[in-house]
Amino acid sequence: MKTWISIPDPSDFTIYNIPFGIYSTPSTKPRVCIAIGNQILDLTIARKLGVFKGLKIKKSVFKNNFLNDFIALGKEKTNTVREIIQKELCDENSVFKKSKNLFHLQSEVQMHLPIAIGDYTDFYSSIEHATNVGMMFRDPDNALLPNWKHLPVGYHGRASSIVVSGENIHRPMGQVQPPNSDAPVFKASCRVDFELEMGFIIGQNTSLGTKINTADAENYIFGKVLFNDWSARDIQKWEYVPLGPFLAKNFGSSMSPWVVTLEALEPFRIKGPEQNPKVLPYLEYDGLKNYDINLEVAIEPKDKSETIVSHSNFKYMYWNMSQQLAHHTSNGCNVKIGDLMASGTISGKESNSFGSMLELAWGGQKPITLNDGEKRTFIEDFDTVIMRGFCEKDGIRVGFGEVKSQLLPAL
Amino acid sequence: MKTWISIPDPSDFTIYNIPFGIYSTPSTKPRVCIAIGNQILDLTIARKLGVFKGLKIKKSVFKNNFLNDFIALGKEKTNTVREIIQKELCDENSVFKKSKNLFHLQSEVQMHLPIAIGDYTDFYSSIEHATNVGMMFRDPDNALLPNWKHLPVGYHGRASSIVVSGENIHRPMGQVQPPNSDAPVFKASCRVDFELEMGFIIGQNTSLGTKINTADAENYIFGKVLFNDWSARDIQKWEYVPLGPFLAKNFGSSMSPWVVTLEALEPFRIKGPEQNPKVLPYLEYDGLKNYDINLEVAIEPKDKSETIVSHSNFKYMYWNMSQQLAHHTSNGCNVKIGDLMASGTISGKESNSFGSMLELAWGGQKPITLNDGEKRTFIEDFDTVIMRGFCEKDGIRVGFGEVKSQLLPAL
Repeated sequence: MKTWISIPDPSDFTIYNIPFGIYSTPSTKPRVCIAIGNQILDLTIARKLGVFKGLKIKKSVFKNNFLNDFIALGKEKTNTVREIIQKELCDENSVFKKSKNLFHLQSEVQMHLPIAIGDYTDFYSSIEHATNVGMMFRDPDNALLPNWKHLPVGYHGRASSIVVSGENIHRPMGQVQPPNSDAPVFKASCRVDFELEMGFIIGQNTSLGTKINTADAENYIFGKVLFNDWSARDIQKWEYVPLGPFLAKNFGSSMSPWVVTLEALEPFRIKGPEQNPKVLPYLEYDGLKNYDINLEVAIEPKDKSETIVSHSNFKYMYWNMSQQLAHHTSNGCNVKIGDLMASGTISGKESNSFGSMLELAWGGQKPITLNDGEKRTFIEDFDTVIMRGFCEKDGIRVGFGEVKSQLLPAL
Repeated sequence: MKTWISIPDPSDFTIYNIPFGIYSTPSTKPRVCIAIGNQILDLTIARKLGVFKGLKIKKSVFKNNFLNDFIALGKEKTNTVREIIQKELCDENSVFKKSKNLFHLQSEVQMHLPIAIGDYTDFYSSIEHATNVGMMFRDPDNALLPNWKHLPVGYHGRASSIVVSGENIHRPMGQVQPPNSDAPVFKASCRVDFELEMGFIIGQNTSLGTKINTADAENYIFGKVLFNDWSARDIQKWEYVPLGPFLAKNFGSSMSPWVVTLEALEPFRIKGPEQNPKVLPYLEYDGLKNYDINLEVAIEPKDKSETIVSHSNFKYMYWNMSQQLAHHTSNGCNVKIGDLMASGTISGKESNSFGSMLELAWGGQKPITLNDGEKRTFIEDFDTVIMRGFCEKDGIRVGFGEVKSQLLPAL
């Protein structure tokens, strides 16, 4: 595909991508848009130009605070919208060329949380991450709990506190147990961490009692986002038995503004890791269900330059999204358009590919050194954490942009 | 207060109650209503009669699938609505007396899930329940984990699978680990249980970073419901480490159709249990924050009469709602109108006051006998579970009606 629009090189937002988001300007209320190069393209205006005419999409679908109504059109229509935009952006005679207000510079618009998230589920599907945490928190010789290789462990998280990239997060207060003490104290967490994750957005409703099988699962996934599941390790350690993490996680999670469709990720499918022992039949799958997505995390201290502290990849996931969704619905649990399912921290095998400070600095024992010589075991006030992700193959690049947020002091 | 309307004795829905819900009929789309005696009163019609004139409430607030927009009016207005209804129902010259279609028999309308639930949090705040479970699942001598008396343990649950009383639930399939086996199998749960809970509905939004203190907490609570947190104990046992229960819970939870306001419960405040050790300052509270609400659970096998298997009371809660909400927001987690926070299973001290079959039949060891001689350790296919709750004091009764659902076979 060759577009007439000018796209910087490299760009996450090539003609092959066309991710969806929600933007506004001081004079325009939130609307659905796509990203192309360093610009956004307003779908309300595109609709007015008549390019989606045959699809009979109501104006309110695009003049909207969220993508949910757009996603609810179904993959057939949303994929057609994406293909029409690609076609117009490659057509030298396109109506897009003459339209005013169709494009804005990304630097001049405000991006919003793209999805009204119903339920948010967080999995724990990186074997390297689960092993690292098990070694530190439990038993180095039996790091993985007995269920881990039999099912994609997951739990429910808090949807209300998910914010878009650019919104900053305050260091949480909470109960922590000081060393050598029986009684907890209430104080600001001193082990605030990021978790490098990706999330997928549910694209179709199911009714209670319906199971989704691994062969169909991707039909229920609209697209993917970058996700920073901020965590307070000291709060987590004290509170998490027996019902799991709660306040250690729900003080805020950060999501990228762009949702990259599964269709855009199609060329980057890759084989998943071998699963041994063999999984139960309802978790078996055929074909390539992992995705080769390069991931990186940078820390940028206040008024200093960033240091990339982790290089990871979504392909490391032991449990793929289809297995996660098949498991999640194996008991009949229903899913809804706009539900978010996150991967859990994505760590690779090498120590520079771990997806959290807990692992990178090994529970505080091995501080990492930033470019300017500062040391970090966890995230400090006014540090900005930036996560990026992109696929690249045969000269085609499809990326997620970034999810970026600063840790502000405790309130 | 003396009403001109005929109310059976006893009734949960006396003139002192006025709980809110959503009803429809074959010819009327969902609307906000209140319960009085064995009738419902349609607030759309009441509005048309002009009784809420001064409040300037839009028609769409009452012609609505959910109570959320009504709750969003704020306690001052919603309490005024409740008081106006009480006044009219006591006024012999009320316009309510002459209106057609204002009242319907409850037996002739369909009740709906009253709330669009954003996030659902489940606490674990009954010390008797936590102790019983700890004795069975972990260590009888150290039944309570070290954090239990220092904070109201809670976790996030699934909102999408919460259904209204009357909707039936299928026995879930899931992974369970057979005794003396290393490998799990995928099968229908054979330990399906109820959990006798109550939930409260958030009535005011907060922004991320805001803490609610115990003195203010009740201003953020619109009202309460009965809640059956269906659980599959065999699935739970295998999956719940280290991140908490997931598929063992999210196959369905049942909620009563009526939301009883905190204001209706005001006369039934009662002192809570002593908390020892002393709680941290942010969890301290003044005044009477527990509520004396009689609770019971009945099992009704197919084509047989019911047996009441548990008599419990909400007053047993170790952690009260104000403490739960103060804890939940102590890290800055935001809450939204329509969020549901449930108590966790409410067990008393006596063995006939336990709030789950797990406890009543002590993990299967002590089957309970129903009226007709049948034995139960857990819930069997086609059993209906019915939970009821009411307050009674000085001749005043305020109740919740019931939450009732049948367990259907696995799909």
